[in-house]
Amino acid sequence: MSGWLAVAGLGPGDAALVTPEVTAALAEATDVVGYAAYVARVAGRSGLTLHPSDNRVEVERATLALDLAARGRRVVVVSSGDPGVFAMASALFEALEAGAPAWHDIDIRILPGITAMLAAAARLGAPLGHDFCAINLSDNLKPRELIEHRLRMAARGDFAMAFYNPRSRARPGQFARVLDILREECGDDRLISFARDIGKPGEQLLTVTLSEARPEMADMRTVVILGNARTRRVGRFVYTPRFAEAP
Amino acid sequence: MSGWLAVAGLGPGDAALVTPEVTAALAEATDVVGYAAYVARVAGRSGLTLHPSDNRVEVERATLALDLAARGRRVVVVSSGDPGVFAMASALFEALEAGAPAWHDIDIRILPGITAMLAAAARLGAPLGHDFCAINLSDNLKPRELIEHRLRMAARGDFAMAFYNPRSRARPGQFARVLDILREECGDDRLISFARDIGKPGEQLLTVTLSEARPEMADMRTVVILGNARTRRVGRFVYTPRFAEAP
Repeated sequence: MSGWLAVAGLGPGDAALVTPEVTAALAEATDVVGYAAYVARVAGRSGLTLHPSDNRVEVERATLALDLAARGRRVVVVSSGDPGVFAMASALFEALEAGAPAWHDIDIRILPGITAMLAAAARLGAPLGHDFCAINLSDNLKPRELIEHRLRMAARGDFAMAFYNPRSRARPGQFARVLDILREECGDDRLISFARDIGKPGEQLLTVTLSEARPEMADMRTVVILGNARTRRVGRFVYTPRFAEAP
Repeated sequence: MSGWLAVAGLGPGDAALVTPEVTAALAEATDVVGYAAYVARVAGRSGLTLHPSDNRVEVERATLALDLAARGRRVVVVSSGDPGVFAMASALFEALEAGAPAWHDIDIRILPGITAMLAAAARLGAPLGHDFCAINLSDNLKPRELIEHRLRMAARGDFAMAFYNPRSRARPGQFARVLDILREECGDDRLISFARDIGKPGEQLLTVTLSEARPEMADMRTVVILGNARTRRVGRFVYTPRFAEAP
């Protein structure tokens, strides 16, 4: 079998954050599969077939990619950020597990990328400079009780936290509830940062205390980063020191 | 002031994982500052001064870099992985906070990179495909009680976990104790992966259950990834599904 399948992270949006490994895979590909907004970031060329698809059809998209690779095509599944962080890699393995036994012979590689929280943290300073958690606030694939339980456990461990998909029209009240839980667990003075469209035109950064935080400060294009108990400002930056004390 | 300071992530070791943004900053630099092993990854050229330093002198190194930039030099502080994840960015802001008021006028940028856990996760499959924590197991800058408390909170939140600096000669028994805590909290069947020298010659991957895990499977060049309760194998890969149930 001469086909292969790479699941590639395009980073947050800026071409300067796409790794040479991903660029090389795209240059060799015969097919690019992905959510339409990410496929649109790949330059078309002769011999390259683009397969844009809608949001929320991750397993169907992965199945198409596996089928193409099994038929000898060189397929790149494009993902925003890093494919292993709330993106296409897990969906690919779900499809592989459910699919044809012959698919296990496909040459599959995951190509890492700059995930949104690391791009956002770099712009803010170093808010994730100590132990931290990454939490997807979408309740599409997990119940809200689990999200709330994880928020409380992370807060009681004094982890910094990065939140993906903080808010959407389908769940208007949920992020307000998240902020209430965080205030209850972490107090009013904890720093929270909102990073929107990082690495894209119109990038926005805002850091406030939890007492000042409002649900409208986030939308689906925002990554939210909560500091730990020692996170502080220095000049225009926010950072978490490397040292910490006993709980 | 024409000088500037960039804290740049070189990724795990493979040049194909260095972002174009970092490559461009290095091409414009007059000075490269960093731990000797990372400075050695930068090609020398006329007009570029290299400032290699020992391990564990992060704040002194950051102070040197700020001083050079304040005197008009174009300085890149190089870091392995991502500078914001258990690396140089927090040390830079500690030095900035403690340093000369004039340093607040320096043009400071943090340039993200592929951090070790994301490179390791990509090679393994997608073990961090759901909510996860990153925990530094070194007790240089925080007490062991805090590390153990965070392990228990992360386990009770059913987070996948990535461990940096799992084991060193200075603390021979500590990682055995970490494995005991994880077995107690997560049970014997939980999958744990050891990824050593990812992106470098001699790369090694090993996935076992917690009951099979031994302290000797890790050293300071290993990133360890613990799955959550649903993490599973598919063929040669390890992945965490995107969906989850109530706690």
